[in-house]
Amino acid sequence: MKIGMSHGAGGEVMQDLISNIILSNIHNTRVNGGVGLEDLDDGASIPLGDYEIVMSTDGHTVDPLFFPGGDIGKISVAGTVNDISVMGARPLAIASAMILSEGFPGEDLERIVQSMDAVSRETGVSIVTGDTKVMERGKLDRMVITTTGIGVVKRGEIIRDSGLRPGDKIILTGSVGDHGMALMAFREGFGFDTDLESDVAPVWGMVEAALEVGGVTAMKDPTRGGIANALNELADKSGVGMVVDEDMIPVREEVRAVSEMLGIDPYEVANEGKVIMGVDPEYAEDVLRAVRKAPYGENARIIGEANQDSHVILETSLGGRRILEAPVADPVPRVC
Amino acid sequence: MKIGMSHGAGGEVMQDLISNIILSNIHNTRVNGGVGLEDLDDGASIPLGDYEIVMSTDGHTVDPLFFPGGDIGKISVAGTVNDISVMGARPLAIASAMILSEGFPGEDLERIVQSMDAVSRETGVSIVTGDTKVMERGKLDRMVITTTGIGVVKRGEIIRDSGLRPGDKIILTGSVGDHGMALMAFREGFGFDTDLESDVAPVWGMVEAALEVGGVTAMKDPTRGGIANALNELADKSGVGMVVDEDMIPVREEVRAVSEMLGIDPYEVANEGKVIMGVDPEYAEDVLRAVRKAPYGENARIIGEANQDSHVILETSLGGRRILEAPVADPVPRVC
Repeated sequence: MKIGMSHGAGGEVMQDLISNIILSNIHNTRVNGGVGLEDLDDGASIPLGDYEIVMSTDGHTVDPLFFPGGDIGKISVAGTVNDISVMGARPLAIASAMILSEGFPGEDLERIVQSMDAVSRETGVSIVTGDTKVMERGKLDRMVITTTGIGVVKRGEIIRDSGLRPGDKIILTGSVGDHGMALMAFREGFGFDTDLESDVAPVWGMVEAALEVGGVTAMKDPTRGGIANALNELADKSGVGMVVDEDMIPVREEVRAVSEMLGIDPYEVANEGKVIMGVDPEYAEDVLRAVRKAPYGENARIIGEANQDSHVILETSLGGRRILEAPVADPVPRVC
Repeated sequence: MKIGMSHGAGGEVMQDLISNIILSNIHNTRVNGGVGLEDLDDGASIPLGDYEIVMSTDGHTVDPLFFPGGDIGKISVAGTVNDISVMGARPLAIASAMILSEGFPGEDLERIVQSMDAVSRETGVSIVTGDTKVMERGKLDRMVITTTGIGVVKRGEIIRDSGLRPGDKIILTGSVGDHGMALMAFREGFGFDTDLESDVAPVWGMVEAALEVGGVTAMKDPTRGGIANALNELADKSGVGMVVDEDMIPVREEVRAVSEMLGIDPYEVANEGKVIMGVDPEYAEDVLRAVRKAPYGENARIIGEANQDSHVILETSLGGRRILEAPVADPVPRVC
């Protein structure tokens, strides 16, 4: 077996690789009964005294390094902040390991580090440690960054992918497909000239606002594999189904246009600044109001409701009904 | 300015890159007054309740992936365990982010994961979370792994590079140069046929034994830049000098032979299973005894003593005296 692009694309093919080669060969997968490797959540947790330490890691290979709306520096810090946030933990610290190709321009590195700094200041997270390696010319395409984050949450208050219950409302914090489509359009030669922009942003502000209200039962940021993957993961891990009102899912006009032109489903591509939340119906309206007031949350909506079935069903106001499947792989490689 | 190989080689050139481009552009560099980015220690610390959480990250680009004595999987988990250990913290959890080249053989990946598992079991550390990305053929030489570790230590008991005091004894836990020279010999075509082997191993057992005795004031694992770099870093950060008895530094015969043949100083190349400790003289003999009984510690020795000067001086029994300088860069690139 040889590794293919789809093994890193966040869909079913990747799940198989992870199960067959990685999980089956690792014995120590959790600490003190916390969230561990085989839970395949957005990160892990380590119970310690009155707290749980949440830890998440992400290797960033985005191509191009600079794209409309962001760059690899912004995506690396925001992405890790987001993985910690959706577990319900306050992000505290980031470790950044950069691998650079020999000959990489110092000015580009400086811009990238400045982007990392901007997100770190916006979210109050510190970049506390790092590592730098250089590979010989021709051995690496420019650079990759791996960011690992630590957050803390009071013991027992962690939010899991598997916490969704029948009757919970599903909140989506904004439009979908922006990141994946912006990258794809840029690569196809549209350059910086369209209105298409990545949505890359830290979601902690929205999450914090929701947690202060209460009633949040599950959260996920729909990155690789898009909302198609994230909604299915939430449903599968929680053992529930859901019905989503397709008319309520915001898709920007320019995203829809490019997606039709390229034949790529905007539900299946990565977002980098959105959250899907499951919320107890008694709290849902209050959580929605709070999220809308938080940064990047003004277009948040309740898009559906969990139930006792076992599929993610999309409904339209015209009466259409279809099953939303998890994609086999993200159709757009190397976007995050 | 363009990035060169020496920018990732662990010497002065790399320190300059880190200071000029990275540190000068990042504002939030520590959490709650813990050890932070600009301390350039083996990792960072985050005080939390009665504990400090220690965090360290390392990108592994070793070439070849499989070498005498180990592979990239073993080095990635052991290396991170070691960085946590030398800060005096018990290693608990590892996050592993793998970036694979399209076409990478599944069997090689499996061997590598099994090596990671072996070190994790030996040290009682868990691999709690991970990430997998794939880059298109030609964009990455086979694979890189970034491992990030978390450890815990009681608040106030962290061991810093800067803790060395005049009069402290310097303990070295075994022979030097094995890893760097084994890699270099292998690349030069000696293959697996020599007795030269990397020393890659987790040092937590030795560190734990030393900490149980007490009196440890500073620790460092002499990786990139070798003991020449590590001894100078300890002295510089602590504001002390030291005199080291060169006859007491163990160098294996085969390491010395290859080092002379290739003209590479074994003091300047990476080790992957050794620790340099500064120890209060009252505790030094007891610590030495404890370390010698721990795994990989049987050749530990007291090699010298810190003083009030400002250089690392090597002395020989024949009366030779010379200053050991920090290398400008590790002479052997991509060994860890």
